Amino acid sequence: MLDEAKFDDKGLVLAIAQDAESGEVLMAAWMNREALGRTLDTGIMTYWSRSRGTLWVKGETSGHTQRVVEARIDCDGDVLLFKVRQEGGACHTGYRTCFYRKHTPAGLVEDGKRVFDPAAVYRR
Amino acid sequence: MLDEAKFDDKGLVLAIAQDAESGEVLMAAWMNREALGRTLDTGIMTYWSRSRGTLWVKGETSGHTQRVVEARIDCDGDVLLFKVRQEGGACHTGYRTCFYRKHTPAGLVEDGKRVFDPAAVYRR
Repeated sequence: MLDEAKFDDKGLVLAIAQDAESGEVLMAAWMNREALGRTLDTGIMTYWSRSRGTLWVKGETSGHTQRVVEARIDCDGDVLLFKVRQEGGACHTGYRTCFYRKHTPAGLVEDGKRVFDPAAVYRR
Repeated sequence: MLDEAKFDDKGLVLAIAQDAESGEVLMAAWMNREALGRTLDTGIMTYWSRSRGTLWVKGETSGHTQRVVEARIDCDGDVLLFKVRQEGGACHTGYRTCFYRKHTPAGLVEDGKRVFDPAAVYRR
């Protein structure tokens, strides 16, 4: 998959993480070649943090790691889909998924499941 | 959602389409503000084609439209998740999903479900 992935002009490919059991889409973030290589080698989701400019082992701080169950690539190779076993929650806000807000005619509504307290998990 | 979406420096936001019934992730593509507005107004998935530089009503040529069942936005607003009712197949290759290739130690393996013949659907 490392050779088939089409990295963009910034050297990145998009990675979607989906809960292997429930099918819930948890998050989407970026990987560079090194992050993808490590993810495939270790079986632990490792992204590229665009804001920090570093490799980012998901769950490093929080313990909320994502173990790879299955890795897929799309037809044109620029989006990857990982089915994962998610510890705790994927979202830094404490929700299980980053997609905890739903569009309604009256505006966005939060309807996600809160699984942890970010203040407790990310405290130093 | 139109006001909460964070469009990038190219004016785009990523949209993931997920089968509302099976939970299968079908594809991921880009939307600009106009494409997102039309998608929300019409309930038919409308993307921005980066290669053609035009709005792209999914299924316009093939009939394989995607009807919006639910629209969600992620925590930082740059990825959207649409649960859709997919007619036919999402992928121009004839597969139900664009993620029809799975990573294995021996390389990528095609294991998707082929639901139409692209030569028949896209013929002029």
